[in-house]
Amino acid sequence: MQFASDNTSGAAPEILAALAAANEGHAPSYGADPLTQRAAALVREVFEAPEAAVHLVATGTAANALSLAICCPPWATVYCHARAHVLEDECGAPEFFTAGARLVPVGGDNGRMTPAALRAALESAQPNGVHGMARGAVSLSNVTESGTVYSVADLAALTAEARRFGLPVHMDGARLANALVATGASAADMTWRAGIDVLSLGGTKNGCLGVEAVVIFDPARSWEFELRRKRAGHLVSKHRFLGAQMAAWLEDGLWLRLAARANRAARRLAAGLSGRDGVTLASPAEANMVFVRWPEGTNDRLHAAGAHFYPWELDGHGEGARLVAGWNTRDDEVDRFLSLFG
Amino acid sequence: MQFASDNTSGAAPEILAALAAANEGHAPSYGADPLTQRAAALVREVFEAPEAAVHLVATGTAANALSLAICCPPWATVYCHARAHVLEDECGAPEFFTAGARLVPVGGDNGRMTPAALRAALESAQPNGVHGMARGAVSLSNVTESGTVYSVADLAALTAEARRFGLPVHMDGARLANALVATGASAADMTWRAGIDVLSLGGTKNGCLGVEAVVIFDPARSWEFELRRKRAGHLVSKHRFLGAQMAAWLEDGLWLRLAARANRAARRLAAGLSGRDGVTLASPAEANMVFVRWPEGTNDRLHAAGAHFYPWELDGHGEGARLVAGWNTRDDEVDRFLSLFG
Amino acid sequence: MQFASDNTSGAAPEILAALAAANEGHAPSYGADPLTQRAAALVREVFEAPEAAVHLVATGTAANALSLAICCPPWATVYCHARAHVLEDECGAPEFFTAGARLVPVGGDNGRMTPAALRAALESAQPNGVHGMARGAVSLSNVTESGTVYSVADLAALTAEARRFGLPVHMDGARLANALVATGASAADMTWRAGIDVLSLGGTKNGCLGVEAVVIFDPARSWEFELRRKRAGHLVSKHRFLGAQMAAWLEDGLWLRLAARANRAARRLAAGLSGRDGVTLASPAEANMVFVRWPEGTNDRLHAAGAHFYPWELDGHGEGARLVAGWNTRDDEVDRFLSLFG
Amino acid sequence: MQFASDNTSGAAPEILAALAAANEGHAPSYGADPLTQRAAALVREVFEAPEAAVHLVATGTAANALSLAICCPPWATVYCHARAHVLEDECGAPEFFTAGARLVPVGGDNGRMTPAALRAALESAQPNGVHGMARGAVSLSNVTESGTVYSVADLAALTAEARRFGLPVHMDGARLANALVATGASAADMTWRAGIDVLSLGGTKNGCLGVEAVVIFDPARSWEFELRRKRAGHLVSKHRFLGAQMAAWLEDGLWLRLAARANRAARRLAAGLSGRDGVTLASPAEANMVFVRWPEGTNDRLHAAGAHFYPWELDGHGEGARLVAGWNTRDDEVDRFLSLFG
Repeated sequence: MQFASDNTSGAAPEILAALAAANEGHAPSYGADPLTQRAAALVREVFEAPEAAVHLVATGTAANALSLAICCPPWATVYCHARAHVLEDECGAPEFFTAGARLVPVGGDNGRMTPAALRAALESAQPNGVHGMARGAVSLSNVTESGTVYSVADLAALTAEARRFGLPVHMDGARLANALVATGASAADMTWRAGIDVLSLGGTKNGCLGVEAVVIFDPARSWEFELRRKRAGHLVSKHRFLGAQMAAWLEDGLWLRLAARANRAARRLAAGLSGRDGVTLASPAEANMVFVRWPEGTNDRLHAAGAHFYPWELDGHGEGARLVAGWNTRDDEVDRFLSLFG
Repeated sequence: MQFASDNTSGAAPEILAALAAANEGHAPSYGADPLTQRAAALVREVFEAPEAAVHLVATGTAANALSLAICCPPWATVYCHARAHVLEDECGAPEFFTAGARLVPVGGDNGRMTPAALRAALESAQPNGVHGMARGAVSLSNVTESGTVYSVADLAALTAEARRFGLPVHMDGARLANALVATGASAADMTWRAGIDVLSLGGTKNGCLGVEAVVIFDPARSWEFELRRKRAGHLVSKHRFLGAQMAAWLEDGLWLRLAARANRAARRLAAGLSGRDGVTLASPAEANMVFVRWPEGTNDRLHAAGAHFYPWELDGHGEGARLVAGWNTRDDEVDRFLSLFG
Repeated sequence: MQFASDNTSGAAPEILAALAAANEGHAPSYGADPLTQRAAALVREVFEAPEAAVHLVATGTAANALSLAICCPPWATVYCHARAHVLEDECGAPEFFTAGARLVPVGGDNGRMTPAALRAALESAQPNGVHGMARGAVSLSNVTESGTVYSVADLAALTAEARRFGLPVHMDGARLANALVATGASAADMTWRAGIDVLSLGGTKNGCLGVEAVVIFDPARSWEFELRRKRAGHLVSKHRFLGAQMAAWLEDGLWLRLAARANRAARRLAAGLSGRDGVTLASPAEANMVFVRWPEGTNDRLHAAGAHFYPWELDGHGEGARLVAGWNTRDDEVDRFLSLFG
Repeated sequence: MQFASDNTSGAAPEILAALAAANEGHAPSYGADPLTQRAAALVREVFEAPEAAVHLVATGTAANALSLAICCPPWATVYCHARAHVLEDECGAPEFFTAGARLVPVGGDNGRMTPAALRAALESAQPNGVHGMARGAVSLSNVTESGTVYSVADLAALTAEARRFGLPVHMDGARLANALVATGASAADMTWRAGIDVLSLGGTKNGCLGVEAVVIFDPARSWEFELRRKRAGHLVSKHRFLGAQMAAWLEDGLWLRLAARANRAARRLAAGLSGRDGVTLASPAEANMVFVRWPEGTNDRLHAAGAHFYPWELDGHGEGARLVAGWNTRDDEVDRFLSLFG
C-alpha cells in the first residue's frame, strides 16, 4: 500500500528497457547523441511546436529554477500559488538561479490561483520606479500541489492576466501528463496555445528514473538556457541516458498511458473513501493525488496496518493525509487500503 | 576506434544490472533508501573514513562546484591549475555556486601544479585588508587534465602549502580511480591522509551512467552541503538510482578493475605510438589519457580512417590530439588504431 | 509646506559645519581617520555597548541589506512586516546582498508586527528538511513604515519569539531617533537590551547629508561585514566625511533634539487635523509621520495650494496621504497647511 | 609631505561651497533635483554626448562594478590589466555585481594593456560551446594603476580588438581628469570616440568629497543600471549632494584645473627625484602618481622624516614606493620631500 509519493516508484519497464538499449556502444556526450535528438523531436511533435527548444535535465527543481531564470531578471517578482512547489519545496532554488528574484504567493482554493487573485496581486505590486521590484513572471503548476487540475480555459484566463502586464508564463508540469489525461486536452492546447511560454515537463514522477524536459516555445532564449544549465552543473555528460528515457516515455503515448493508470487508481481511492464515516476529500481528486481529512488517530492506525503515505497539514478539523497513486499502483493495493476502513 | 572521451562510453554491465535490480518495488526518495546508505557505507569503508559525510550527485560539475561552495566564501580565491576543469570546462559553475569566488590559475608542467608555484601564488596574494580578496581554497585534480597523476607525496607537498595559509583543499577526482590504479596508492592515502578535505569522486567517466560522490572528510559542513545541493536542484528524487550505481561501482573493487582496464589500454596506445616518426607524447600518459603531437595532417587522416578523438591545442610544432581510453576500450581497437601508422 | 519626505530636507547646520571642519588637511582613508573613530566611540557610548562593532555607510538600503547578509544564509527566510522598507522599497537589495534569502511578510495593524503573527509565521514555516527554506532572521523597523513606534516591551516580546527559534534580530532604525524621542526609551533599552542583534542607525533622514551606522552588538561578525561592505562598493574612501556627520549628529544629543523637533511638528499636524470634517488618521501619529484619510479631491486641492506630500494608498474610503515632518519643519508651515482646511 | 593617496585629501573649496549652497531648502530626493539634472547636463556637454545616460554614485568601486554588470552576463569574462583596480582592489565587487563573471588579467608593461596581449587573451579564450565562459567585456583604466596614461590612439587600438569580438568596453576613469590633462585630449576623444561604451568618471580622488558619474554612451542600458544601482543600495536619497559636487567640479573646467595641479606636482616630484643616486622611476610618471625604486632603507628614512606614502612592491632590486600628488599638493611640500635626498 504505497501512497507516499510518485517518486517512491521505480521506472516503468519500457523506460528501463530503453535505458539498457541505449547503453550499447559509444555515443556523443552532452546531448549531441541521436537519442536526445529523438527525444527533442518527439516533444516538438507531441506539442505541435516545431520551433520549440527542448532541453533535458535530471530533476524537476532544476527544470523549474532554470526556466524561471530565463523568464525574469534578478530584480523582478514571480507570481505563484501559495502552495507552489517552487515556493515551498525547492529550498530557494528559484532565488538562487534567478540571482534573487522574489516569489510572491497568490491565493486560490484547492491549489488553483484565480484570475482575480492574480490580477489583484499584479495590480497591487506598483513597481514604484526603481524602489519596488519589477513584475517578472507568472508560474503555474498543472497538476497543482493540491491534486487539482487547471482546465485549458483556466490557464487561458490566467495567462491573459499575465499578458496585460507583459509577463511571460512558466508552467511547472511535473505532473503534466496527469493533467492532460484528466482533462483530455492536447499538449499544445494546455501549454502554448493557452499562453504558456516555458514548460517544465516532468517524466520522473510518471515512470522515468529521472528526466525532465524544459520546453521553450519561443526558442530565442534557448542559448541562454544552455549556458545557465551548464553553469549550474545540470548538463549531463552521458546525455543519451536522459534522451533514452524521454524518447521512450513519449513514444506511442506511453506517458499518457502511465498517467492514466495513476489517475484511475487515485479515482478508485477517492471513490472508495467517499462516504466513509468522517472522511472527506480536502480538495477534488482530479489527477493522481487524493487529499483527505479523516478522524484523529486514522494516520497512525493506517500506518500500523502497513500503508505508506504522508500526513498532511490541513486547516480545519481532524487529521489530514496525502495519498499519491503512481503509474504502478494496483487495484488490489487500493482495495486493501480501502478495506482498512471496514 | 573510440578515443574521444571517457563519457562517450556507456555503463559497465555490472552497473546496468544494479540499476535494473534497484528498480524493483518502492523505495524512499531523496536519499533515504537502503542503496544510497549502502553506497555511503562503501565509500566510508573504501576510504577508511568512518566519519566522512558522503553525498551523491549526477554530474562532476555539480560535485566540484558544490564542494568549492562549502570550502570558501564569496570574497575568496580558489587556487587551481591553469588547465583545471573547474577553470576551463564548467562555464563558471564555481563562480555561480560560490556566489562569486575567484579562480586563480597556478602553473606547472604537464597539468601538475608545483608546490613552488602554489606557494608563490599564495604569497603574492597579499589580501590587503578588505581591498583584495581573501585566500579561500586550493583545488587539485587527480588525474590531471593533462593525463598525469599526482603521487601521494606530490599531494602532501601541495596541501602543506595550503595548510600554511589555513586553506582547505578540494580534489577533483573525476578520474580518481585511474589515479589510484596508476600509483597503487590507497584511497585514504591519496585523499585525507594527504591533506584533502573534500573530494569529488567520479563514477561517471569510469563505467557508471552518471553518479559522483562528494566526500567531506570532516562532516561538519555536511548539512550546508545538503542545503546547497537541494537549492541547486541536485538532490535527485529517485535517489536509489544514484545509490545503486555507486554501490555497485565500489563493490568488490569494480571501480579499480574498470580503471585498470582503461589505464592499460592507454599504456598500450602510448607505447605503440612511441617511436613512430614525428609522434611524441605531449605529456606522460600516466593514466587513461594520451596527449600526442604528430605531423600536420595526421588528425584529418585518422578521422578519415574512422578514429574518434579530439584535436588538442598544444604549444609547439605539429598537431595535437587527445586520446582517451575507457573501461571498455579493447586491445584490438587500439591495435587497429596503431596500424594506421603503418 | 514640505511634507513629502524626511529626505527632501537638507542637513542641519551643525552637520554641515562639522563637514566643513573635517575638510581641513589630510586624513587616512577608508575609516582609519580620527573622526570615524570618534563617531564609533560615540555610538558605543550612546548605546552603552562598549564591545559593539560600528561601521558607517552612506545609505539606509546598504545598511539594511548588509546587516541582513550577516544575519542569515542564502537559503533562509527573513521575517518582516508586510509594509517593511526592506520588502517594499529597496528593489530586492536584501535578496541581492544575502544571495537569495527570502523575505516573508508578517501582518499586524499600523505597521507593527504582532508577536502572535510572528509566532504563527515562524511555526508555519516548517523547514521540512532540505526542501523548505530554513528560518533565518527577523527584521523590525522602528519607527515603522506606518509612523507608529514599537515600545521596548513590544520589541522584547517580538525578539522573544525570534529567540525561541534561535534567530537573530535586525532593526531598521532609519528613524530610530524619532522612536527614542517618542518613547523616552534609552538607546540601549530599545536595542540590545530588548534583544536586537544588529541595528541600522539612520542619520540621513534626521539632519545628515547621508550617513548610517550599522551597529553589531556582538562583534564576532564584524569582519565579515567589512568584507561585504567593501565588496558591495560601500566602503567610502574619504571616510572622514561619514565620520564627521555621525560624530556631530550624536554629539551632545543633537540627534535627539532634531528628532524631537520633527516629532513635535508631526504631533502639531495630527492634532490640527483631528476633528476636521472627513479627516481621520489612518494610523496613530506616534513619531514624525502622519498618515491621513480625507475626502476625495483633497490631495489635488492641497497640492494646488502648494503643499508637498505623497498620496498614499490606504484601504477603505476616501483618499490617503502621508505627511512627513523633518528636523526643520516650522510651526508656521504646519499652521499654513492646517489653514487650508478652513 | 602627503603623498599617500589622492583620497587622503579633502575637497576643493569650490566643491565644499557648492555643497553648502545646495543645502538650502528642500529638494526632491533620489536624483530628481535640479542640481543632479545640472550635473548630468554638464557631463553630456563636456563629453559632447547629448544622448548619454549619466548616473551618480558615491564610490569608485560602485561605479566600476555596476558598469561591468550592465556590460556582461554572469557567464562571461572581463578582460582587464593584471594590475587593474577592479581586479586587485575591490574585494571581488565585479564578481558580486555581475553575479559571477570572471576577470581575466591581461599583461602589458607599466600598467598598460597592449593590443597584442589583449588579442592573444581574446583569441585563446575559445568559448568551447557551453563549456568555457563566454567573452564578455574589456575594462581599461585611464590613468592606469601604474601612473601611466593611454593615449587616444592606444585606446582606439584596444577597443578595436574588443570590437572584433563584439565586446563592449568599460573605462575606469577614477583619474580620467588627470589623463585628459596629461594628453590634452578632449573628453569625447578619449572616451566614446575612442570606442568606450561605459565610463566611470571619478570626482572623489580629484577634489570632491565622494562622487562618481557613470556615463553610458548608448543609453539603452540606462534603466537596467538604475535598477541595479537601487538594488545595490547605491541610490543616494539626498541626491542633490552628489549633484552639487559633480556640477561644481565640471563647471568652468574646475576638474581639469585640479587635475593639472596634481599632475604638475607629480612632475615636479619625478623631475626632482630623477638623477638622484640609486633612485629610478619604476614607470613613467605621466599623471599624478610617481612609482619609484630606491635603496633599501629609504622608505623607513623618509617615513621617519615625516613623509606619508605607501611602500610598493616592485619587481627587481631595492625598495619601491608610490607617491601620489593631489589637487592640493604644494610646491613647498614637494621641495621639502626632495630636500630629504640631500
